[in-house]
Amino acid sequence: MNIVILAAGMGKRMRSRLPKVLQPLADKPMLEHVIEKARLLGSDNRLIVVVGHGAEAVKSYFAQASDLIFALQAEQLGTGHALLQALPYCDPEKPTLVLLGDVPLIRPQTLQDLVNAAGDHVGLLTVCLDNPKGYGRIVRRDGEVCAIVEEKDATPQERLISEVNTGIMVLPTRHLERWLNELGNQNAQGEYYLTDVIARAVSEGVPVKTARSTSATEVEGVNNKVQLAALERAFQKENALRLMNDGVTVIDPARIDIRGELVCGKDVTIDVGCVFSGRVVLGDGVKIGAYCVLKDVEIGAGTQVLPFCHFDGAQVGQDARLGPYSRLRPGTSLADQTHIGNFVEIKKSVVGLGSKVNHLSYIGDTDMGARVNIGAGTITCNYDGVNKFRTTIMDDAFIGSDTQLVAPVTVGKGATLGAGTTLTKDAPDGELTLARARQTTIKGWKRPTKKQ
Amino acid sequence: MNIVILAAGMGKRMRSRLPKVLQPLADKPMLEHVIEKARLLGSDNRLIVVVGHGAEAVKSYFAQASDLIFALQAEQLGTGHALLQALPYCDPEKPTLVLLGDVPLIRPQTLQDLVNAAGDHVGLLTVCLDNPKGYGRIVRRDGEVCAIVEEKDATPQERLISEVNTGIMVLPTRHLERWLNELGNQNAQGEYYLTDVIARAVSEGVPVKTARSTSATEVEGVNNKVQLAALERAFQKENALRLMNDGVTVIDPARIDIRGELVCGKDVTIDVGCVFSGRVVLGDGVKIGAYCVLKDVEIGAGTQVLPFCHFDGAQVGQDARLGPYSRLRPGTSLADQTHIGNFVEIKKSVVGLGSKVNHLSYIGDTDMGARVNIGAGTITCNYDGVNKFRTTIMDDAFIGSDTQLVAPVTVGKGATLGAGTTLTKDAPDGELTLARARQTTIKGWKRPTKKQ
Amino acid sequence: MNIVILAAGMGKRMRSRLPKVLQPLADKPMLEHVIEKARLLGSDNRLIVVVGHGAEAVKSYFAQASDLIFALQAEQLGTGHALLQALPYCDPEKPTLVLLGDVPLIRPQTLQDLVNAAGDHVGLLTVCLDNPKGYGRIVRRDGEVCAIVEEKDATPQERLISEVNTGIMVLPTRHLERWLNELGNQNAQGEYYLTDVIARAVSEGVPVKTARSTSATEVEGVNNKVQLAALERAFQKENALRLMNDGVTVIDPARIDIRGELVCGKDVTIDVGCVFSGRVVLGDGVKIGAYCVLKDVEIGAGTQVLPFCHFDGAQVGQDARLGPYSRLRPGTSLADQTHIGNFVEIKKSVVGLGSKVNHLSYIGDTDMGARVNIGAGTITCNYDGVNKFRTTIMDDAFIGSDTQLVAPVTVGKGATLGAGTTLTKDAPDGELTLARARQTTIKGWKRPTKKQ
Repeated sequence: MNIVILAAGMGKRMRSRLPKVLQPLADKPMLEHVIEKARLLGSDNRLIVVVGHGAEAVKSYFAQASDLIFALQAEQLGTGHALLQALPYCDPEKPTLVLLGDVPLIRPQTLQDLVNAAGDHVGLLTVCLDNPKGYGRIVRRDGEVCAIVEEKDATPQERLISEVNTGIMVLPTRHLERWLNELGNQNAQGEYYLTDVIARAVSEGVPVKTARSTSATEVEGVNNKVQLAALERAFQKENALRLMNDGVTVIDPARIDIRGELVCGKDVTIDVGCVFSGRVVLGDGVKIGAYCVLKDVEIGAGTQVLPFCHFDGAQVGQDARLGPYSRLRPGTSLADQTHIGNFVEIKKSVVGLGSKVNHLSYIGDTDMGARVNIGAGTITCNYDGVNKFRTTIMDDAFIGSDTQLVAPVTVGKGATLGAGTTLTKDAPDGELTLARARQTTIKGWKRPTKKQ
Repeated sequence: MNIVILAAGMGKRMRSRLPKVLQPLADKPMLEHVIEKARLLGSDNRLIVVVGHGAEAVKSYFAQASDLIFALQAEQLGTGHALLQALPYCDPEKPTLVLLGDVPLIRPQTLQDLVNAAGDHVGLLTVCLDNPKGYGRIVRRDGEVCAIVEEKDATPQERLISEVNTGIMVLPTRHLERWLNELGNQNAQGEYYLTDVIARAVSEGVPVKTARSTSATEVEGVNNKVQLAALERAFQKENALRLMNDGVTVIDPARIDIRGELVCGKDVTIDVGCVFSGRVVLGDGVKIGAYCVLKDVEIGAGTQVLPFCHFDGAQVGQDARLGPYSRLRPGTSLADQTHIGNFVEIKKSVVGLGSKVNHLSYIGDTDMGARVNIGAGTITCNYDGVNKFRTTIMDDAFIGSDTQLVAPVTVGKGATLGAGTTLTKDAPDGELTLARARQTTIKGWKRPTKKQ
Repeated sequence: MNIVILAAGMGKRMRSRLPKVLQPLADKPMLEHVIEKARLLGSDNRLIVVVGHGAEAVKSYFAQASDLIFALQAEQLGTGHALLQALPYCDPEKPTLVLLGDVPLIRPQTLQDLVNAAGDHVGLLTVCLDNPKGYGRIVRRDGEVCAIVEEKDATPQERLISEVNTGIMVLPTRHLERWLNELGNQNAQGEYYLTDVIARAVSEGVPVKTARSTSATEVEGVNNKVQLAALERAFQKENALRLMNDGVTVIDPARIDIRGELVCGKDVTIDVGCVFSGRVVLGDGVKIGAYCVLKDVEIGAGTQVLPFCHFDGAQVGQDARLGPYSRLRPGTSLADQTHIGNFVEIKKSVVGLGSKVNHLSYIGDTDMGARVNIGAGTITCNYDGVNKFRTTIMDDAFIGSDTQLVAPVTVGKGATLGAGTTLTKDAPDGELTLARARQTTIKGWKRPTKKQ
């Protein structure tokens, strides 16, 4: 099958410099949603994207996608003209499915149903709307489609028809060159409309089969930011519904955002206001507190995340306790039963079994063993202004508060560091190491007084 | 009165390991909501909970509740069979009120109305639904209930009836043993349905009185996570409404979560996204900023809490100013006019009148007097790896920035600590104490260069 | 024109100590919204505010507004009586527009349409409601208003009328003294109702012209906190819609709060849960992450703000990267390409081009040059308990982690400070300066053991 995605439109009403089909829905361009759905229809289809407005930006965004063929529609002369530009790349022996780059939530099953319905003929995806105003009505005779009538041309009776054209269709490619080249543009916009091929098919006796979408959302197009936001909400509502049907406790389905993939085990609870992006995996019994922002994170069973956490690119073991206000940055790996507390940032570090970083610390480029206790205000000085170095903290070490570990440096097994130490050389196993000035009291010192 | 709560169901559609009636609504098992309502009907009633699926988990959760009698329904053979298991624990001389463990929002007043309506006879709680589909319709003759007709058995005319059975009823206990033992299970599920006792009562001429709930929410049952979330939202909406009717300014009633008890004085303002749990008391004129998470907190009049605070188990005086990003942990007590600032954690500590901890500090196990100023980055080193010790900071002390107080240690009245001090011995009253290395400049030192 | 704003009501149902018209909507008293709209009708109108309940509080709030005339209604005897108190301040030659202090969202254009419609006669603002119950119906004969009929006096047929009185009207001032003095108070409340002047006008043959509002929201009055919250939401929904129509990507229009003025360039994206107040200006391409709270901030093009930021009174350059969990306080000015990271507070400071403060720092009263790197845990000690001093950090300085800069102090150009330094004297250009105790290991030291 050929799958042609029309993605050349400008989207002027978006009021943006970004081409319309690159406008993101759930963090991903609308066109990418459509392409992903198209791919799900099978790996041996030809995927042809018709680009026009912002063609370079679109092609550049998808530069790594070697399965896409780009056809250029240099001038935007209508959907029929757009498809014509794709035709040279289509296999004439196989049917052509036409998708729309600004209809991002279309479901693969719906497309499959349409393709099945079409067979060797024309297939048209329709939907019944409570308020069909403005859409092309599907006029049927004896159950068969005989015309699509636009709002302005419709009789009062036709306007009562609730079944409308979605613009998504399957066409017999062997007829397409002739049909598309013979389209007229005698209309208000002076455009060549793909919809007109339906009339042509009917007149030539090519059967027009239909599949009917049961969801207005999946066939909805986006022309401005208001519609984009509405579709984003519809998408997130579906995400929440799917999670809940899988057994996840979602405290407020109207306040969860999933931009990517969220995989949940059994008995996961997600509190209000969480935002997930990339790929997030939550093990059995994981609890995510209110207002957590998680991206590309894997969290083991039984771990509890308190509110206001911000994780990006981290792996967390089982039965850990994180937050509130913990930040995990890329390259962080926390073992089971670790505790990471408030105002703590961890980056490119491994934290071993049961180790604790509970308060106000920065741990970067560090390899930490098991059962380590990191005191409040500890900082790994991993950067000398040009290079980064690693810190090693071995099992059972106890790091006193407000200590600086000037990397590269190693704290030995079971070593203890005194509070306030600036550690510049390795600390031996099992001993107390510290760097500390003598405490003195300045007798007779006077507090400063208010300056005038 | 006997109050029997049916709580034996599995709730397979919850897709959870937790028994259905332990699924939490507003942080509390649904069954606990029902039990609390039942208790409000009077302290001399017998409370019998019929457990079955997950019986041990349920009994263990309520192990401290000495007023509950548990009846075991070993096999789940229907609601009639469930009630039969409770019968041995019921006082036969008194009526039996049957509640449902998965209908958590039932109002005590509604139940009282039902009990009053029932008198010595049968009482049935009904509700009128806009869409009664799927529910047993209440068929009346001359105003009296004559049957409950299930959806599948209903005539088209009966299907138009909007008054439906809620499953909550009052039964004359003296008839129950006979009625329940004679229930049949000739139905699709092969279950003994409690509803069938209504037909029995009618046939025996026992009057069936009704009370009608005016809220679809209070009689709504929960079978899956979607319904659980919907009921959670309905509950929170009611909470917000109650607050606003009491004069609280709730900036967005759709974005407030109250899981427990929230008591507010006059002219309290709560900004968007706040989450309250346990018992929270807010004095007159308190303002809570956006996205605060408060649990078991008491806050005095005139205190202002800025956004992103996380309090748990704390007492705060009047006219204090807290946040943003302040964390108070259990055992914190802040006097009037205290200031706690950003990235500050306080635990098991007393902070005296007008004292300030404004920036990036950890104060744990500390007794702080009045008018103390704690510099940025101050840390109380309260933990030596095995024991915790207290720090004492007396009135009018001034603690320089980035100071560590190694407990047990005392800072005297009016004492000043120099910035960067590691304090290991007591600092005397009124004097400047510090521990500081000499500042030196290394001439000719070269900055590191980029490693290859 | 005379513009009289009725603002004397008590608002008992608000259950607040604050006078009703001072209750805030989007951070600003309702009355202030009305006054601002009134001002937009032209600068040569007379603005008269009728105060009564809480008169002193109202007058004091607007003490700086020299264009307002306050008329005192000592006793609250109804709207007609209220207007009578304003009459001595009105120019009798010009029409009088009557606004309501508790109808805050009225649009200037609607008022202008009403004034235009009224001409020299009476003008009445009406609105058609789906559910007009409780409102005074507009009865017309041959298209002309002939009466306003209150709910309780309305015939069943009149109750079907959906067009109702909003209470906002334009009156010919020359008739007003007579009309108002002759109003009766024979009604249940014993009040003099302004509405009754309409009947008077009709009876005297003074034409009653109307303008019809197309928005129920703009004519909605507020009597309790539930209505206040509903109007707040309606207002925020309109704000979001306006932003989206201007091309801003608003991820969830139901979760954005704008309390003041938000000015956005092209291709701005605002994630969920952000709160804006005061005047906020966002340049082209700015991205604001989830849950940011911004007040009086200007942010340059291309800057990205990560979640959980709290800015108040700050200027930020272009292509900066801020957050998560950054706090900017008043007097902060960040140059282009600056990076401010997590758990960092900046106050009254200038940060130069490309400088970085990435972790856990407090920078106050500081002048920082370009390309400076501030290590984690750096603190400027700007306060000696009574006075504040400034810190100067010159271009290309590198401040090691956990350093305290005891102001007044200067770090020279290209200077380096060692980690953990307490800097009390100036650090020379280009050299390494540090204050550090010798690192020692205490052989044979034993860890503390658990106390009994």
